[in-house]
Amino acid sequence: MAVTMHDVAQRAGVSIKTVSNVVNGYPYIRAETRERVEQAIAHLGYRVNVSARNLRTQRTGMFTLAVPELSLPYFAELADSVIQAADENGWTVLIEQTGASREREAEVLSGRRRHLTDGLIFSPLALGPDDLPLFDVDFPLVVLGERVFGAPADHVTMNNVAAARAATAHLVALGRRRIAVVGAHEGEQVGSAALRTAGYRQALEEAGIPFDPALVGEAGLWHRSTGAETMGRLLDSGVEIDAVFALNDAMALGALHALHARRIDVPGEVALIGFDDIDDVRYSVPTLSSVDPGREQIARTAVELLVERITARGEPAPFRRVVPDSRIVGRESTGDVPAGAEGRVVGIQPGGVEPVEVVGR
Amino acid sequence: MAVTMHDVAQRAGVSIKTVSNVVNGYPYIRAETRERVEQAIAHLGYRVNVSARNLRTQRTGMFTLAVPELSLPYFAELADSVIQAADENGWTVLIEQTGASREREAEVLSGRRRHLTDGLIFSPLALGPDDLPLFDVDFPLVVLGERVFGAPADHVTMNNVAAARAATAHLVALGRRRIAVVGAHEGEQVGSAALRTAGYRQALEEAGIPFDPALVGEAGLWHRSTGAETMGRLLDSGVEIDAVFALNDAMALGALHALHARRIDVPGEVALIGFDDIDDVRYSVPTLSSVDPGREQIARTAVELLVERITARGEPAPFRRVVPDSRIVGRESTGDVPAGAEGRVVGIQPGGVEPVEVVGR
Repeated sequence: MAVTMHDVAQRAGVSIKTVSNVVNGYPYIRAETRERVEQAIAHLGYRVNVSARNLRTQRTGMFTLAVPELSLPYFAELADSVIQAADENGWTVLIEQTGASREREAEVLSGRRRHLTDGLIFSPLALGPDDLPLFDVDFPLVVLGERVFGAPADHVTMNNVAAARAATAHLVALGRRRIAVVGAHEGEQVGSAALRTAGYRQALEEAGIPFDPALVGEAGLWHRSTGAETMGRLLDSGVEIDAVFALNDAMALGALHALHARRIDVPGEVALIGFDDIDDVRYSVPTLSSVDPGREQIARTAVELLVERITARGEPAPFRRVVPDSRIVGRESTGDVPAGAEGRVVGIQPGGVEPVEVVGR
Repeated sequence: MAVTMHDVAQRAGVSIKTVSNVVNGYPYIRAETRERVEQAIAHLGYRVNVSARNLRTQRTGMFTLAVPELSLPYFAELADSVIQAADENGWTVLIEQTGASREREAEVLSGRRRHLTDGLIFSPLALGPDDLPLFDVDFPLVVLGERVFGAPADHVTMNNVAAARAATAHLVALGRRRIAVVGAHEGEQVGSAALRTAGYRQALEEAGIPFDPALVGEAGLWHRSTGAETMGRLLDSGVEIDAVFALNDAMALGALHALHARRIDVPGEVALIGFDDIDDVRYSVPTLSSVDPGREQIARTAVELLVERITARGEPAPFRRVVPDSRIVGRESTGDVPAGAEGRVVGIQPGGVEPVEVVGR
């Protein structure tokens, strides 16, 4: 097997970026470090892939977007937004679907294919905090999502806890007390499910409503089908339910279907709110209230940050974490608007920008 | 600007494939043709991109899928199916979104980026019969859709006319006579809209129902929003309607929304059928009848044909056109199943395989 930059970095005890800097003749490297890297290169017989580099020296004008699943509407719409933002800046996007497989996600970061494009926007769904070292890559990278914090890269994420709390509080404000969750991941400490469930519990606590585990419905994958199954299971369990917070819109649409199949009126008997504000929820019957996590802004910011890294000269800027504002959009499923009317914003959670505290540095 | 293979082909009066064959030392070329190409190469100073070729001689294990729009569920699901089929065969897919722009679609075929991957599955939405010469490319290509017939490439398409006729006939069989169309493209001679509208008219004729232009609703883009607008316009025009054939499911979901907003019962007052059988229609309220054009089989066949071209040795096989079977799936919106029940197949239109008759050869 060919020796990689990663092997050199490991032997020299430095980061892949440092190896890359040495190989590419970057000036600001301590003599001792440079020597260590050069010894490792000599020892391992590492050879730069020249034909790849020839193509690389001229930028490709393309970057890669790696997402878990395009059949999930959120990611399809995110891809669409990223492509539009890139297009406005003269960039072309190649999209890779990882299927949320650890192996595929690691491969995306391995750099094996990095000569194809100039950089990567990456939304991991399988890798987690333990995989942080994989994110120390020698190409421009912007991380999306809430699986990994503290990677040496720009990061665009959502206001998950605050937005989930506000969505739940909106159901409480309608007088609902028996609020079910659809899509929980029991025992998971990282990721959207954990954060959104935490926001749900905060809202209950603030309202003085005791937490009832019988109201928490598990769903591994966040699809329409799993939403319908989970909702059906909760309803069939006989537990009293007067509202539902589905942790994404695909599951909310599935839950709506399950409620409809049992002839339960939404919002009359059960109010329902989702998360993502995908295009579907404007057209469902009834239309679906949701959390708009700022998808457009996420896409736009990710493209800006990546292009900035790709085209930067001189000292690299510190890594930033950007959180767009999120909005609760009320529609028919929470009785906020009459049939046929557009949704309206019933709450805003402000985002912000802060430096990334890189883990392990 | 660099001289391209296209320029050489033009000057020598041969196809790009012939130039490629000469450049790559392919044996079966007439001496006279070879000489013409070599003279053109010398005259124009054409130089093969060596670094691209170095990368090419080793296959990348990847191919490109170019689709118009990932935010259209049909294409997101098609991409997902292609990726799964590729994965089972050990191939990785990079996806490019063209936005149905002529410029982007031509760029995909131009081969400027063909060194990135080993081949292309391409679903054009802007290019048409006049652009056939662009499809004469020097890399493995499989064409999807109904915009371009007769390109020198394998082609996977749908059973559009027969399936649309069957969908309309299904509405007729329910006793409906005032069947509106949502999504027509007036004056267009090629593409899905023209073919599906033709199938609709055939079904009316077979049933002895006179064609009424007032029932034909135009919609340029086939989105939920345009479906809702077109349905609203038809309803507001005061024309009598007892059924709707939406030319894709996204528009059918929009039409359903418009009917709901006007408190028109589906299927009681208006029966509704779509086309594509995307995942959404199993979960809408009511669930939506649709035409399953064989998306899984389209994806699987396209991958098989492309991989066969990429890995072929010796004389190339003749180009084939493959049409999967299509199925009419009845659900709540045509009263075929009670609330909460799965859809059921109420009709099948067989597909088939035939050789492509390459235009201009």
